[in-house]
Amino acid sequence: MSDITFKGWAGSKVENPTTHLTLKEFTPKHFDATDVDVAVRYCGICYTDIGSYEGELGGIVEDRVCGHEVVGEVRRVGDDVKDLHVGDIVGIGAQTDSCGECEWCKSDQENLCSTKALTFGGQYIKGPSKGHPIAGGFANYWRGPAHFAVKVPDSLDPASSAPLLCGGVTVFSPLKKYGAGPGKRVGVIGLGGLGHMAVLIAKAMGSEVTVLSRGAAKKDDALALGATEYIGTGSDLAADFKGHTDSLDIIICTINPASLPIDQYISLLRPRGTIVLVGIVPAPLQVPTFPLIFKQLAVAGSVIGSPAEIRELFELIAKHPNAAPWVNKYRFEDMNKAMEDFGAGKAKYRLVVVNEENGGKL
Amino acid sequence: MSDITFKGWAGSKVENPTTHLTLKEFTPKHFDATDVDVAVRYCGICYTDIGSYEGELGGIVEDRVCGHEVVGEVRRVGDDVKDLHVGDIVGIGAQTDSCGECEWCKSDQENLCSTKALTFGGQYIKGPSKGHPIAGGFANYWRGPAHFAVKVPDSLDPASSAPLLCGGVTVFSPLKKYGAGPGKRVGVIGLGGLGHMAVLIAKAMGSEVTVLSRGAAKKDDALALGATEYIGTGSDLAADFKGHTDSLDIIICTINPASLPIDQYISLLRPRGTIVLVGIVPAPLQVPTFPLIFKQLAVAGSVIGSPAEIRELFELIAKHPNAAPWVNKYRFEDMNKAMEDFGAGKAKYRLVVVNEENGGKL
Repeated sequence: MSDITFKGWAGSKVENPTTHLTLKEFTPKHFDATDVDVAVRYCGICYTDIGSYEGELGGIVEDRVCGHEVVGEVRRVGDDVKDLHVGDIVGIGAQTDSCGECEWCKSDQENLCSTKALTFGGQYIKGPSKGHPIAGGFANYWRGPAHFAVKVPDSLDPASSAPLLCGGVTVFSPLKKYGAGPGKRVGVIGLGGLGHMAVLIAKAMGSEVTVLSRGAAKKDDALALGATEYIGTGSDLAADFKGHTDSLDIIICTINPASLPIDQYISLLRPRGTIVLVGIVPAPLQVPTFPLIFKQLAVAGSVIGSPAEIRELFELIAKHPNAAPWVNKYRFEDMNKAMEDFGAGKAKYRLVVVNEENGGKL
Repeated sequence: MSDITFKGWAGSKVENPTTHLTLKEFTPKHFDATDVDVAVRYCGICYTDIGSYEGELGGIVEDRVCGHEVVGEVRRVGDDVKDLHVGDIVGIGAQTDSCGECEWCKSDQENLCSTKALTFGGQYIKGPSKGHPIAGGFANYWRGPAHFAVKVPDSLDPASSAPLLCGGVTVFSPLKKYGAGPGKRVGVIGLGGLGHMAVLIAKAMGSEVTVLSRGAAKKDDALALGATEYIGTGSDLAADFKGHTDSLDIIICTINPASLPIDQYISLLRPRGTIVLVGIVPAPLQVPTFPLIFKQLAVAGSVIGSPAEIRELFELIAKHPNAAPWVNKYRFEDMNKAMEDFGAGKAKYRLVVVNEENGGKL
């Protein structure tokens, strides 16, 4: 397999780099005995990809290749890889590697390892390619540690599985940690890529779901996704939330305003409830301590998940096929158009680029 | 038993009401079939008692009797009471009653009931005495629902059990909820009444404990209580915390400054860690979202606990006698002196008033 030519959508120091990507050959990492080569069929687009191309992660890096919701077919397997075989369909998320030796790595929580290598702009951390920039899934091939390539169950649609690898597990992990399930009422703030997966996944876990979104525009979609209640928000949250205080056990907040009126959102929580942020809000949250203490609430944050959590999420969706993300597919060749539409908010609710030459289906 | 004269330390609208309490006769609630009468032997003093006498809870109420860490002997048992008998030693905490019908009451979480009746200044919520002011344990007798009188195990010292009923369970409940135990590192901010119990209880649960307190004054006590590490804090927390970042799984914050530099304290947390406030901080917490999300942290609050949690805490201390609170005893007759010394910070670490006429021992 040494005759593969690796090609990916490379960023550069131009204006609007995200919509001016160039398909370029690149030198992959050294193929270690623990690696696999994956022919990419599908890759979801996530906001972090834009952030990475635009330099929010250590400045703009020439020829960086992003994409971190990667699904494809295993084409080559390193000698030390035991669990994967040529022909397997696997998924790779936001994390490409970790130290493998710390307590987090040894307890299936690699995403908490302090030396993790991020797929959307990190560097390999081990072996001959240590320091080499990581290439993501906006490419024909992905090469990296088999440990971070999770087998996609046969019964799952591989295209709509791609967004589960970052966005999906980012909402699944806290839903699980904070006890979503039958009898628990989940609120989801914002109905975008992450929000729509939070609704689908919380419902699949057995929870009742309330969606909070601006105005009424997304009400029909919210209900179609499985929400039982919709709260349209405007400029006066206190008025919007009338009759809804003390109604939710877990709130997943997927929005990224400059500042978040957390005191208002907290009023929606029932005793022992938790609000979980999964996106950065620039201004510090102004958390009032009175309700926090007397209602025993928690304000938490979370992002991504471990390979074990991705595996568990895949199993959940395999049991609940209706909970698969809603995706819009774009040809791999139309990457810049996909990025443009994604940036313009046209995703309903996650864009996935499709490599037809590798067997991806539009 | 209708010949009991109830007498308690009553507050009034004088200057410094807390240290000018008057021992007065009072009319107890109607004795319902679900009630018990308890001859009070010991009662701990908690800061909330001061707040209540001084009017922070609905203004100063003439003749209010506080005290909500009550231990005594059952002297009369209502016809509908099944689990308690005359002669039993029981404890009553900050809560005297709840609705008994909501999901929280039905799942042993009465402290989360929205209609709970507080021992240190509430009103009875049921039966013929509905609306009558609740009288606490700074009295010779306590009368109230047997459901909230928890049996003190024979092997426990009843005097040092009193502070467990409010302060103890206030720190035990979140320690349990957030997973204190072997392999978990607990930090305790502030070494006062609650802080010293947090150290003792976390240690009894199997955790390693770090105490954070101003300067070096309390270092010896911290180590004597079972802490393995002590961080003396000054005016520059960033400098004080050097070498301690990412070191704690759970932090119990028992201090009540006007505002709390939560960003600094958060830096001490390991991934998936939680900081729990158990006291009101007037200014909203300024919580930075970046570490919250990337380290999957939580900022939480908690206060008191349910009768079931008090029972569980009693069992824990019965197994770990060294974890009993450190108490200073005062004669019941010296109530105002006890209050004065407590207000002056002389408790090491919890003051307990002793009713010798009921069998309490100095």
